Amino acid sequence: MADTTDKASAVRIVPRTLKGFRDYLPEQMLVREQLIETARRVYRSYGFVPIDTPALEYLEILEGKGGAESDKQMYRFQDHGGRWVGMRFDLTVPLARYVAQHLGQLDLPFKRYHIAPVWRGENTQRGRYREFLQCDFDTIGAESVAADVETALVIHDLMHALGIRQFTIRINNRMIFNGWAERWGLQQQAAAILRTLDKLGKIGPAEVERELREVVRLDERPAAELLQMVTAQGSNDELLRRLDQWGAGSPLSREGVERLRQIVDGFAAATGASLRLKIDPAIARGLDYYTGPIFETYLDELPSIGSVCSGGRYDDLAGLYCRQRLPGVGASLGLDRLLAALEELHLVEPVRTAAPVMIAFFDERYYHPYLQLATRLRQAGIGVELYAEPKKLAAQLKYADRRGFRYVIVAGTDEFQAGFCRVKDMRSGQQVDCSLADDAAQLVAFLTQALSERRPQS
Amino acid sequence: MADTTDKASAVRIVPRTLKGFRDYLPEQMLVREQLIETARRVYRSYGFVPIDTPALEYLEILEGKGGAESDKQMYRFQDHGGRWVGMRFDLTVPLARYVAQHLGQLDLPFKRYHIAPVWRGENTQRGRYREFLQCDFDTIGAESVAADVETALVIHDLMHALGIRQFTIRINNRMIFNGWAERWGLQQQAAAILRTLDKLGKIGPAEVERELREVVRLDERPAAELLQMVTAQGSNDELLRRLDQWGAGSPLSREGVERLRQIVDGFAAATGASLRLKIDPAIARGLDYYTGPIFETYLDELPSIGSVCSGGRYDDLAGLYCRQRLPGVGASLGLDRLLAALEELHLVEPVRTAAPVMIAFFDERYYHPYLQLATRLRQAGIGVELYAEPKKLAAQLKYADRRGFRYVIVAGTDEFQAGFCRVKDMRSGQQVDCSLADDAAQLVAFLTQALSERRPQS
Repeated sequence: MADTTDKASAVRIVPRTLKGFRDYLPEQMLVREQLIETARRVYRSYGFVPIDTPALEYLEILEGKGGAESDKQMYRFQDHGGRWVGMRFDLTVPLARYVAQHLGQLDLPFKRYHIAPVWRGENTQRGRYREFLQCDFDTIGAESVAADVETALVIHDLMHALGIRQFTIRINNRMIFNGWAERWGLQQQAAAILRTLDKLGKIGPAEVERELREVVRLDERPAAELLQMVTAQGSNDELLRRLDQWGAGSPLSREGVERLRQIVDGFAAATGASLRLKIDPAIARGLDYYTGPIFETYLDELPSIGSVCSGGRYDDLAGLYCRQRLPGVGASLGLDRLLAALEELHLVEPVRTAAPVMIAFFDERYYHPYLQLATRLRQAGIGVELYAEPKKLAAQLKYADRRGFRYVIVAGTDEFQAGFCRVKDMRSGQQVDCSLADDAAQLVAFLTQALSERRPQS
Repeated sequence: MADTTDKASAVRIVPRTLKGFRDYLPEQMLVREQLIETARRVYRSYGFVPIDTPALEYLEILEGKGGAESDKQMYRFQDHGGRWVGMRFDLTVPLARYVAQHLGQLDLPFKRYHIAPVWRGENTQRGRYREFLQCDFDTIGAESVAADVETALVIHDLMHALGIRQFTIRINNRMIFNGWAERWGLQQQAAAILRTLDKLGKIGPAEVERELREVVRLDERPAAELLQMVTAQGSNDELLRRLDQWGAGSPLSREGVERLRQIVDGFAAATGASLRLKIDPAIARGLDYYTGPIFETYLDELPSIGSVCSGGRYDDLAGLYCRQRLPGVGASLGLDRLLAALEELHLVEPVRTAAPVMIAFFDERYYHPYLQLATRLRQAGIGVELYAEPKKLAAQLKYADRRGFRYVIVAGTDEFQAGFCRVKDMRSGQQVDCSLADDAAQLVAFLTQALSERRPQS
């Protein structure tokens, strides 16, 4: 109503987004949609199927599942019915709830992907936002090393499909650490130790050792032994040998090393790219629930941005909600962080339009013929924008140039009467005349040919 | 950590979703993704570009923009920084804020689509949830009737692309009503009158007239005149004539009728399907902000489910946040409601798998050859799931059958040693042997051919 609007404009509100949140402009969103589509294609090519869950869950479903940090960062409130609810902070806890709830309707092993936003009220820093998209894939109900190998393979294919050639998947096995903790009777301190180890890249080994001694209160010997392991370097073969020696006192550690070996071998057999998967004893991952292999993925040219795809094996997450033991393994592509990295590496070609062709709308009397031409081109599979209102040609060409249309079709009285149109190539500036006879067959043929030559992927 | 898990399972939490919220199972989600992809393709084919905005906005951005009902239903709370925030209840208000905020970076006319969930704490009923996906497209900064026509054309193409053959786009023009309200000096009551008219389909003309008289307190003559208009029936031509007579006393009404005529003509010129767009003077739409043409879309075979795609022209929404006057027009596809309708009409073919082929994993010693075969098929563009762990063949075939795989590849010692594999057609039960020589060329050729014959769309 005019009334409402008038009143509201009188008290005009500053248009702004919340701190840590952001809008996506079309040129960013076009790339983002392409990345999402690629992730979906790769996940599907391995037989993963999509699911979705609500943004809001009962607070008791989410609370205490991701550790103290997650609890602190969670957006929570009372809904209209007085229920305490939370906004999901990851897609793994909702998956556990989902599997427990729908167990009877799911086929095990259950391989799902889930692409959706999550929310964390954390401090904002480079590449970190309070709302971000996760692209998770997980296999539930399979203990086999094959599911671990597949996790690495999906990450590998994903990076390839995204056009990234220089990347390294770093892998470790939580079992090795757990065996060590068991051997030293340090299970109670395990979470605190892992959180300290997770800082290794940031604060360095000396500071980690100091923190292990002074904050976690480890004795000198276990602290030194642990440091020796997490700082070990070498080829996968060398590291497997050293880890095996190092974990000699613990069957669990040795089993962990053996499983690492099988994963590395399976990955090499499937891809022939054995160097892409690198054992790294320093990988700890902050999250509490991992129990087996853990993965992180770094771009070789931009390691500082952090892991763009991380995950691991967790052996009983659904146990929070049901009796059945349901081991799982999977990983999460941090799409927004990856996008930031691709932009920094100039691996993203800017696009500002979704349709390659524009029809100029400058003679109002020919509105219906313009419409029919647009319909004709769309029926031939050619995306076409009819400029939204009659306007001077110069202004429309300027718009077309800014938006990055490839071709602009220009036709006025002269052209329509003579039965043709001009097609302007917006890069070269050249013009071609195309007949409009036979349902614009010549025009359709010309555009189909011209666009197929440089369409990114069809 | 084992500890955390043990403790948590001791106090097991009931896995459940909040009332009015729901999970999507893979078979539902596969269809949903297909619908979303179709909507995106149609929007892009008209040159609309994607954007995204945060789920959370400053409360002052959202409050008072959608009317009292929206305010009541909005999820709102204080965030960690003590700011009052709300979850978006539609994509139109965020669009207005977005356009005002980024005006300098956008090209006008700005044509955007936005596919994202919105939240409303409303009472739950058939096809209504508290979280649902909206698929909006809007053109901002164009007053022309061409943008109105395009809105109807996009809806038309969308329905077609979704496989719906029996549908009607109903159109009216708020200007006709506004002219009438002006003539009777009833601008202050306009919102209340519209909300009453919006119930016409539910409660019938007699009850609407009673409510207009007794609740809104209209006099007998304007109430009768209004009823005469909203219950008028006939062909588009007849209705245009009658509406023109009816609105004779108001230039605004007559302008509204003339614009309706142009839209109907433009639509017919572009599509040749003039019957798909039907003038309906009863269409009111509850939302306050419409000022021109309004659209609703009904499935002819299931009108009771309500409009599956609705929208209209609003002439100054961004005026809430900036000085510039930015007229807009667009519509929103109610994807979840549409999906419910398609299911009811059996227009949805059930799918439970994203990859058409499964490789049985029953001989552990051949794990690496299985992996290599899977890689080979994926490289040829064939989606393939390697069963997640070594298991008896019978169990795997049962799984493959339930999941709806088209082909299962079976190979054990005998086959591998003889250099071939068996391909089992899961529908016919027939088996074909394919050689694995020359990098499995025969197998790749067979599957590529067999799957291309019945792939829905590639």
